[in-house]
Amino acid sequence: MPQLSTVIAQIESDPQLKVVVFDSAVPGFFLTHYDFTAPLDLTIRMAPGPTGLPPLPDMLVRLSRAPVVSIVQIRGRATGVGSELALASDMRFASREKAVLSQFEVGAGFVPGGGPMARLPRLVGRGRALEILLSGNDIPADVAERYGYVNRAVPDAELDHFVDALARRISTFDKQSIAEIKTLVNNVSLPTDSELAAEWRGFLASVQRPAAQQRIKMLLDIGLQRDPAVETNLAKYTGEVSNQVGKQ
Amino acid sequence: MPQLSTVIAQIESDPQLKVVVFDSAVPGFFLTHYDFTAPLDLTIRMAPGPTGLPPLPDMLVRLSRAPVVSIVQIRGRATGVGSELALASDMRFASREKAVLSQFEVGAGFVPGGGPMARLPRLVGRGRALEILLSGNDIPADVAERYGYVNRAVPDAELDHFVDALARRISTFDKQSIAEIKTLVNNVSLPTDSELAAEWRGFLASVQRPAAQQRIKMLLDIGLQRDPAVETNLAKYTGEVSNQVGKQ
Amino acid sequence: MPQLSTVIAQIESDPQLKVVVFDSAVPGFFLTHYDFTAPLDLTIRMAPGPTGLPPLPDMLVRLSRAPVVSIVQIRGRATGVGSELALASDMRFASREKAVLSQFEVGAGFVPGGGPMARLPRLVGRGRALEILLSGNDIPADVAERYGYVNRAVPDAELDHFVDALARRISTFDKQSIAEIKTLVNNVSLPTDSELAAEWRGFLASVQRPAAQQRIKMLLDIGLQRDPAVETNLAKYTGEVSNQVGKQ
Repeated sequence: MPQLSTVIAQIESDPQLKVVVFDSAVPGFFLTHYDFTAPLDLTIRMAPGPTGLPPLPDMLVRLSRAPVVSIVQIRGRATGVGSELALASDMRFASREKAVLSQFEVGAGFVPGGGPMARLPRLVGRGRALEILLSGNDIPADVAERYGYVNRAVPDAELDHFVDALARRISTFDKQSIAEIKTLVNNVSLPTDSELAAEWRGFLASVQRPAAQQRIKMLLDIGLQRDPAVETNLAKYTGEVSNQVGKQ
Repeated sequence: MPQLSTVIAQIESDPQLKVVVFDSAVPGFFLTHYDFTAPLDLTIRMAPGPTGLPPLPDMLVRLSRAPVVSIVQIRGRATGVGSELALASDMRFASREKAVLSQFEVGAGFVPGGGPMARLPRLVGRGRALEILLSGNDIPADVAERYGYVNRAVPDAELDHFVDALARRISTFDKQSIAEIKTLVNNVSLPTDSELAAEWRGFLASVQRPAAQQRIKMLLDIGLQRDPAVETNLAKYTGEVSNQVGKQ
Repeated sequence: MPQLSTVIAQIESDPQLKVVVFDSAVPGFFLTHYDFTAPLDLTIRMAPGPTGLPPLPDMLVRLSRAPVVSIVQIRGRATGVGSELALASDMRFASREKAVLSQFEVGAGFVPGGGPMARLPRLVGRGRALEILLSGNDIPADVAERYGYVNRAVPDAELDHFVDALARRISTFDKQSIAEIKTLVNNVSLPTDSELAAEWRGFLASVQRPAAQQRIKMLLDIGLQRDPAVETNLAKYTGEVSNQVGKQ
């Protein structure tokens, strides 16, 4: 969170900056979820950001509103905060072969907190948003493209070049025109702060309930946050864990 | 209508229920349209439901707002109320080979009444919504998927398994989290009651005008509600009937 | 502008008219952009239209609100005002082989003025809208269809027949029902006038700034508005010109 905070502050304040690209240095993963081994108290005690929202929604909102174009390049898993960062960015391009997006949270017994209930229906429509959010299932790149969850699924071999050419092209344009176009689009397409605040409250309340605490403990026991095979098959393991809970 | 009313009341009140699936026992049809042989007076005299809306929009709104996930599995024709029930549900899955969706009403000279003017633009955008609503044409499953009218068109042989696996998966999740996620999505994606009330008034007024009465009589004479071949080729027959009216 | 004004007034006032189709008599082009060789003063001095908006947004809004169905058939380039006219119309059908849509303006250093920041996010979602508006890139018909920028990309050999059959079908329907359905859809899907007014102000201010004046002069020197090869490769030339500006 502090690293992301530094990056967002730089994006907001650099007078020359026109475009940023977010990608991952970790093979197989773009960015995944909230840290369940850290004390929850650390999250609850974090002071609100400049928008008055709690830190995570605050930073994501500021990214959406910054006078800089944010492009996400997804090669690997993006779930939880990873999906939420992608949704708060301006454009999303996914490796056709290697990208998988999801909001896995419902499978672990809690409500996502970083904006997907407000952002997904505006992007993919109510029906597909509910499918993503209530199934917690993996959405491979081709389905994500069909749904509008990402702008495009690009063949993996072409993804770097595609995103680089787009970012370089935009970087030659007039910064003021970029900022004004983005503001006009934002005015008709961004969620309100109160919608985002409601999600964060929903996350904090739900993650402390027994339904979540029990599932999270079971997932940590299986290997969540330690074993890449669990993270890579999170939809399967949330299903198994929820199935066991139901039988108790 | 009374049967649907009973089902909706059960969905709202069952404390254990997490998911419902709507499908059809009639080969070739999911659900079609309003009954034109019953006296219109029966419809006009129906008392408003708990939301204050007339019964049909009332029941559809309550389905959308219920703390239960509604999944529609379409194998066959869904038009009129059939399409409107699908649009009011949370997710729509269609047989790639056998599903056809439409709002045929304009071809019979009247305005749909169960919400599609409010729901379709939010789901498929203004242009495609106007095409569906103003052409009255059949939308086969692959186009419905491309437009976002349904979540996915699934090969017919896989549809039962796909929907069953999804419904069973969701049924193992925490009911309170499901309900809270759905509410947060609803808050940013559902039509207002006044938008829905306006449609019902538009339906009631238009269906009593000569343009509708003449076309409906001609369609009943041809075999509407008696001959499956008429229902299966409704777009063709509404076109023929409207063409004849224009030449008179 | 006066020609379009006459057409819009006819569409609004003809009591028999149900459908209009816009296509182009110029091979390779649907409609392109604002005239940069005319004195800007001519644009600034134009009196507001009946809606109180400046003439271009006024006419486009009136087309969207007219009780007549407007269908755009795109075979060739649609950029700038051409894309904006398409977006203000009710339905868009594109030649799969020959249609290309774009909003090229950012590449020439200014903000579009005819509504695309308000209309595109509602049609294609925020991410794809920002890609179209901030890249200024060509969007071929198949991508335009996938994004929802057009209703459908139709094989070129079938396009005339497809649009003609659709327009003739609608023309046999009841005019009052058509108008009421369109109004109900408009109520939930059209931008507000103040959103459109903000775009026009953004266009007028930005087109007079040095970033735009310099790029427009360079494009005119290369052959903009004289050489079809420049218009046909506008994304390439705006990129080259912006690249040169950056190096100065």
